Amino acid sequence: MTDIFLSEMLGTGMLILLGGGVVANVLLAKSKGLDGGWLLINFGWGLAVFSGVFVAFSTGGHINPAVTAGIWASGAEEFGPGIAVNAGNFVTYVAAQLVGAFIGAVLVYLVYKKHFDETADAGAKLAIFSTGPAIRSYGWNTVTEVIGTFVLVFVVLSFGNWPGDLGPLAAALLVTGIGASLGGPTGYAINPARDLGPRIAHALLPIKGKGTSDWSYAWVPIVGPLIGGVAGGLLAGAIY
Amino acid sequence: MTDIFLSEMLGTGMLILLGGGVVANVLLAKSKGLDGGWLLINFGWGLAVFSGVFVAFSTGGHINPAVTAGIWASGAEEFGPGIAVNAGNFVTYVAAQLVGAFIGAVLVYLVYKKHFDETADAGAKLAIFSTGPAIRSYGWNTVTEVIGTFVLVFVVLSFGNWPGDLGPLAAALLVTGIGASLGGPTGYAINPARDLGPRIAHALLPIKGKGTSDWSYAWVPIVGPLIGGVAGGLLAGAIY
Amino acid sequence: MTDIFLSEMLGTGMLILLGGGVVANVLLAKSKGLDGGWLLINFGWGLAVFSGVFVAFSTGGHINPAVTAGIWASGAEEFGPGIAVNAGNFVTYVAAQLVGAFIGAVLVYLVYKKHFDETADAGAKLAIFSTGPAIRSYGWNTVTEVIGTFVLVFVVLSFGNWPGDLGPLAAALLVTGIGASLGGPTGYAINPARDLGPRIAHALLPIKGKGTSDWSYAWVPIVGPLIGGVAGGLLAGAIY
Amino acid sequence: MTDIFLSEMLGTGMLILLGGGVVANVLLAKSKGLDGGWLLINFGWGLAVFSGVFVAFSTGGHINPAVTAGIWASGAEEFGPGIAVNAGNFVTYVAAQLVGAFIGAVLVYLVYKKHFDETADAGAKLAIFSTGPAIRSYGWNTVTEVIGTFVLVFVVLSFGNWPGDLGPLAAALLVTGIGASLGGPTGYAINPARDLGPRIAHALLPIKGKGTSDWSYAWVPIVGPLIGGVAGGLLAGAIY
Repeated sequence: MTDIFLSEMLGTGMLILLGGGVVANVLLAKSKGLDGGWLLINFGWGLAVFSGVFVAFSTGGHINPAVTAGIWASGAEEFGPGIAVNAGNFVTYVAAQLVGAFIGAVLVYLVYKKHFDETADAGAKLAIFSTGPAIRSYGWNTVTEVIGTFVLVFVVLSFGNWPGDLGPLAAALLVTGIGASLGGPTGYAINPARDLGPRIAHALLPIKGKGTSDWSYAWVPIVGPLIGGVAGGLLAGAIY
Repeated sequence: MTDIFLSEMLGTGMLILLGGGVVANVLLAKSKGLDGGWLLINFGWGLAVFSGVFVAFSTGGHINPAVTAGIWASGAEEFGPGIAVNAGNFVTYVAAQLVGAFIGAVLVYLVYKKHFDETADAGAKLAIFSTGPAIRSYGWNTVTEVIGTFVLVFVVLSFGNWPGDLGPLAAALLVTGIGASLGGPTGYAINPARDLGPRIAHALLPIKGKGTSDWSYAWVPIVGPLIGGVAGGLLAGAIY
Repeated sequence: MTDIFLSEMLGTGMLILLGGGVVANVLLAKSKGLDGGWLLINFGWGLAVFSGVFVAFSTGGHINPAVTAGIWASGAEEFGPGIAVNAGNFVTYVAAQLVGAFIGAVLVYLVYKKHFDETADAGAKLAIFSTGPAIRSYGWNTVTEVIGTFVLVFVVLSFGNWPGDLGPLAAALLVTGIGASLGGPTGYAINPARDLGPRIAHALLPIKGKGTSDWSYAWVPIVGPLIGGVAGGLLAGAIY
Repeated sequence: MTDIFLSEMLGTGMLILLGGGVVANVLLAKSKGLDGGWLLINFGWGLAVFSGVFVAFSTGGHINPAVTAGIWASGAEEFGPGIAVNAGNFVTYVAAQLVGAFIGAVLVYLVYKKHFDETADAGAKLAIFSTGPAIRSYGWNTVTEVIGTFVLVFVVLSFGNWPGDLGPLAAALLVTGIGASLGGPTGYAINPARDLGPRIAHALLPIKGKGTSDWSYAWVPIVGPLIGGVAGGLLAGAIY
């Protein structure tokens, strides 16, 4: 699979299907994982990364515009095996990630359709699609997303330090850890496509009893991760 | 161990012994893992896959008719090392998986015999053997099983994208993730043998105070996984 | 480190220090992990195996007489690298495992000394050292231990089926899974030294407010694991 | 990255950012991981080690003065690839670890700024920075830290026993296990820099409603880990 768009779209779709799915499992009425706890959510998202990176391995498994931007900022010559770093490929990566995230969110809706119907809490429904702050403060929420995404990109680019290779497992564990440690204030978007694509899906899907898609917050999980990703890429490029 | 039947029977038996076991541990009266939570169930099933795939490694560790069907649909030439894809071998795989699942379920009953005796809830007893929907809706329940099994087979067939090799650990983590994320509505059969074999065992075993084996639902975790597995195999065959 | 006794003693000591430790953490008054749940106990014991196998890697990392007996029963020619299978070496392994388990249990007591002092429940104190049944039934408890240890030895001997190598991580995950799935009725001794060594320590140590060491049950976690381990070894020897 | 100071500072900073972060997530008001449990804390710290070791891999990923001291005590010739064991390098390692730990703690404060503001419990705030005993007893608390750090260093130095290589994952799992098993009495500092650097940050940062930095306890997580680390290094040097 050498087609950039297809690879990143499928990988990001897998990421959101499994990532949104674990939140649905924990939040929606009558679901078997109801109230399963934060660690369940962390492992669910980590293993979503695991699956998504495997699917998109031929393009380096970015499945995240902040990673693509960070790799560009690092001064690397390739986004993935045989894929040159340039603006055209960047746009292809990001467009594919957004489309994939949208599709993944639609699939989550289909998997949990009956549970969406039986859940009253509109906020819980939105939380399955997009992130939101525990305490709304655009500035501090952005700081949290910047630091979380900095960790993601900087550590991902350190994986090459070690001669062995854990492949997608390393990324999965890293994201599990970021969620466990830095996810408390904002729900760790750390990925603009992960947040925006599903938010659009939330706005468009005929979800029973849904509320607002909270567009006033939507820029935070775009701007914060892009800043953090570029910062992580710059530092990694400077010292590794 | 080159005998297909023996390998898949033992592997699937191990899968169900450990997979059914963790549900028993969480649901049966006086068990030390009582109310251990969804993540415990997810890891229990994931590590059941881990053990089952190791045991059945010489046949590729399918331990699931949906995987065998998906590999066939993908256009692969071999089910496992030196094992040609053909109808005769397919039947052998599936028969072995069913027999193994039945045996595994009987062993779960033996391990937890005294706890079955002391548990009043007939529904909990059935849940140790077979899956059931949180909200009964044959159509949507099938959709959930189709998507879950699609993920299983499509991602398993992507494991070859990565030059490294995590072996059975990759399959274990994938199933842990599918359970965490997509298991909420139906309990993630994603494997016809995993559901049918133990359901037969439930019907035959002299379990104290058991209720119905819920045969009206039994086709969902057969049809859904087969559709999803074939779909995953077809897509993987087309693009990898 | 080629000395069998030293290697197995240190490895089994590490196993019990970390394994008994996690139970102490969950059960003793004022401990930070109090009521941490079954999954915490499962991971704690799994990672205890991880550490113990690393420490005892030069002798094959048995740290369990049932494993040593199972390897013998399988018809293998070596217990570990360059260590012949014979009665003398078997006795050395087992003696070292017992002594190590005793030492590990003493260390657990030292780590949690103040918490032992402040805990009233004598049963909880014994549970840190030795296993006990959730429902006392010597016959069925033995069945549970036989099946659990059969899984342990049979799957450990299947690790060689796969050309890759996860090393001690594979054993750690297997034991985590056995605990999650088969540990509910008896607390998964699956290792005679793990149970007997610490039970002797419980009897000898000046633990404040301790109760009986429950010697009437002590034969179950010796006999059950030995039967299961030999059965697992025989089957593995016949088919792998 | 061959600069010792930079490598160990960044690695230890990553350790504390993620390690302190998970405690903040579990303890601070309104955080999404509030009351997430001990296992979440254990995995959070384990994955913090995972990330920190990757970042500092070029210096061997010590990120802990007790590890550096233990390697010295073991008689090794190098602290890391091409880095001689000598007093000057030892001081560089330790100074970098302390500075990194301080910076990591400041970042935790920024990530959780609004949650610090809304939390009343001053003890919870300190617990995000530094460890404290469940039952205060300087002698026994020191014993606990000595044994925990002995396990850390002795097992880390056993990783070379196995021909395979799990790299940073092995260290992550080991620390997860030590926390699960031996962390109950003191919160497992097992690392002088991990405790002292953040304690200084706690004393200096303008945290709303903060209490004492508990300097009377501060020597325990320095002295205990150094004794345990040296003991682990000596034993490993003698037998491996």
